[in-house]
Amino acid sequence: MSEAAERPAAASLYGLTPRLMGAIGLALEQGQDSHVRALVRPLHPSDLADLIERLDPDDRMRLVAAVADVFDPECLPWLEDGVREQVLDRLGMARVAEAVAGLDTDDAVEVLESLDEAERREVLRHVPAEDRAVLEQGLTYPEDSAGRLMQRELVALPPHWTVGQAIDFMRSSADLPDHFFDVFVVDPRHKAMGVVPVSRLLRSRRPVRLTEIMEREFHRIPAGADQEEVGLLFQRYGLASAPVVDEDDRLVGVITIDDAVHVLGEEAEEDLARLGRVGDTNVNAPILETARTRISWLLITLVNTLLASTVISQFEATIERIVALAVLMPIVAAMGGNAGMQVVTVVVRALATRDLGTDNIFRFVRKEIGVGILNGLVFATILGTVAALWFEDVRMAGVLAAAMVLNMVWAAFAGAVIPILIRRLRIDPAVGAGPLLTTTTDVLGFFSFLGLASLLLL
Amino acid sequence: MSEAAERPAAASLYGLTPRLMGAIGLALEQGQDSHVRALVRPLHPSDLADLIERLDPDDRMRLVAAVADVFDPECLPWLEDGVREQVLDRLGMARVAEAVAGLDTDDAVEVLESLDEAERREVLRHVPAEDRAVLEQGLTYPEDSAGRLMQRELVALPPHWTVGQAIDFMRSSADLPDHFFDVFVVDPRHKAMGVVPVSRLLRSRRPVRLTEIMEREFHRIPAGADQEEVGLLFQRYGLASAPVVDEDDRLVGVITIDDAVHVLGEEAEEDLARLGRVGDTNVNAPILETARTRISWLLITLVNTLLASTVISQFEATIERIVALAVLMPIVAAMGGNAGMQVVTVVVRALATRDLGTDNIFRFVRKEIGVGILNGLVFATILGTVAALWFEDVRMAGVLAAAMVLNMVWAAFAGAVIPILIRRLRIDPAVGAGPLLTTTTDVLGFFSFLGLASLLLL
Repeated sequence: MSEAAERPAAASLYGLTPRLMGAIGLALEQGQDSHVRALVRPLHPSDLADLIERLDPDDRMRLVAAVADVFDPECLPWLEDGVREQVLDRLGMARVAEAVAGLDTDDAVEVLESLDEAERREVLRHVPAEDRAVLEQGLTYPEDSAGRLMQRELVALPPHWTVGQAIDFMRSSADLPDHFFDVFVVDPRHKAMGVVPVSRLLRSRRPVRLTEIMEREFHRIPAGADQEEVGLLFQRYGLASAPVVDEDDRLVGVITIDDAVHVLGEEAEEDLARLGRVGDTNVNAPILETARTRISWLLITLVNTLLASTVISQFEATIERIVALAVLMPIVAAMGGNAGMQVVTVVVRALATRDLGTDNIFRFVRKEIGVGILNGLVFATILGTVAALWFEDVRMAGVLAAAMVLNMVWAAFAGAVIPILIRRLRIDPAVGAGPLLTTTTDVLGFFSFLGLASLLLL
Repeated sequence: MSEAAERPAAASLYGLTPRLMGAIGLALEQGQDSHVRALVRPLHPSDLADLIERLDPDDRMRLVAAVADVFDPECLPWLEDGVREQVLDRLGMARVAEAVAGLDTDDAVEVLESLDEAERREVLRHVPAEDRAVLEQGLTYPEDSAGRLMQRELVALPPHWTVGQAIDFMRSSADLPDHFFDVFVVDPRHKAMGVVPVSRLLRSRRPVRLTEIMEREFHRIPAGADQEEVGLLFQRYGLASAPVVDEDDRLVGVITIDDAVHVLGEEAEEDLARLGRVGDTNVNAPILETARTRISWLLITLVNTLLASTVISQFEATIERIVALAVLMPIVAAMGGNAGMQVVTVVVRALATRDLGTDNIFRFVRKEIGVGILNGLVFATILGTVAALWFEDVRMAGVLAAAMVLNMVWAAFAGAVIPILIRRLRIDPAVGAGPLLTTTTDVLGFFSFLGLASLLLL
């Protein structure tokens, strides 16, 4: 999976190149706002979003300020939630309202979702009344539902029309979506009767009735359906678009494949993050937030291993004169291993989705070491206290705490660097990084604890 | 993510219901072939593929035999490789050739890929000459490249044509793909000049020239590009279809979003499988194959933990009178934990993609226990031998081996059952299953080893 990134052919497929990143960074540093605007203008909204996410927070704000007047609102739906909030704050509510009014309903609703209640009301007050009603209705659907994902802009035609009438209507109507793959045939009560793919409409002769060429069997998505379900449905049946209906089977919107692809990507990422025992895989989140979201996962591992240690301690007669060290030793190794695997999971996913590149690797490694120090201190305190009370030996507890910090900092560094290094050797980091990492954390876990103990305690 | 499966609204979105599965199973058992055919006929190709995968191997062959004469070849591209090979074998090469000739080139190439060299030649011999040349050329592109993914069927029009000419041509031409989202404008040397979305063509007036409405900036995919790169490109830019070009920029095919979605799903699955340290996440693979693909991952863990144990043993002076038990004990726990997590990874992914349901859970659990016994015996032998040689104590090595088998069988059972049970409690199995599992494997690992040791060795 990783080799592809190195191929020149593949690199040229993207609008945001490392060279362009460099040029924009330089222009931002030198305060050449008009040059920044010229460099940014040709970017696809999705590339602009990627650029904004990759910049550090200061440069990010400088960029948004530089392009504020010509800011392309189409890039907002592509941004990660946290970054989107920063950008919206910087743009100001009046500018955001303008942006929201210009977006398709699905994208506009997504932008509104990342505002708090007060900001949302403020923005909606600036939006023209007819758009406002549609957006407010969109927000009534539950989060992560088909109703939030759909766009209201669609082509619905009456069943008695012919192909010719349909084409003439579409040629003269200005208020249609930019692109669409299907037109829908609805009865007078707006119930969905059939679907006509646009390519079929194009190939049919003008006098043919829509009812003759429409598909009567099609997938109707209930507005309350879970978005993941929608993604899987598109994947399973190879759909390009699908109508969304309310409880009375009335057509209320359409979901297109690009929305479904977005959801599928999000869900796959979620699964990966969870199996890697991390809160999320966002490489751009700040140190404190990353440290905080990982603590709960590490606590679980700690409870696990402590529980296991109580079992070992039940067998003092079997393991003659078992000492506190033997009971606590595996904990240091296991905590390092788990913390390191969290980093590996994030790096592997980020390398795969190209969220981590030469431009932000150094910053990322530095950040991960910071996270390692913070969480190392947290768990050194907890485990040190437990050990001091359990074995009534403060010096040994101190050794244990020191070993814990050492191993978790190492785990952070190694977890970030190992996948990147072995990718250079053209080995897939998803395969090789985990085992290599846990070997180092096991060895260093036992070594640092026992080594410090033999130096300080004996 | 899991709750969605329980919602009635979501269940009704799929053509293959548990009730239908049951009815088909019964009809197969009673040998009512015509009833089987009647039940299967309305299924979408993707649902038929899912049905075939879910049946056990005997029923699978019975189903294929029953529907052979009316077999829908469109279902072949949806099948997993292993199952597809079985189905193709059962259908026979003449029937396969017929099926291949009826498929779009991308699907036909995918089917041919799963045949060995001799079978492929045999099938191609049965395919009409004009199709054969196209398929043979498709097979010249590297595996997992854009060239293999693309279909050759597309609409390419000359630049001097008007919208009216284009529409008239498409109305009268029989040899066009079923559905398409874009038409391509090519120069006389077949170089791609521009792309016109079908909805735009439909909305433009007849005298307008194609060159006036075509997009001149578009994503050209090199035929040699990696398929994962293609998937990410579609995701990143929200594409519906994209032209594939050769080294001379000549249009050679088109990739549509459904292919890209398929690739993205495959790649996400691969990442998950690797992070979960398993070969693949296919729940339908036979016991022996599953056991075999997992051994290499478990070997790595074994080497890891042995290496760590040598470190512990260096500190005999520190941990007074450290005994073999203390050195080897964590290995049993770690091996159980890793084996169990492999099962959890597969179950979590399979629950998410709906590959595991009430119909095949019992069979799956039984299979996993079998895998646990096999791999438990393999690693009991290895570790037992190592321990016997290292500590020169055969009885202790026997205890170690027994504890290893016990814990790995438990891990297999618990790894399969825990995610399913906690999903019943409406807890996301991807979150809860791992920690719960490793707690049980740690405790049972230490307990079984030390317990057996105190019973048999003291």
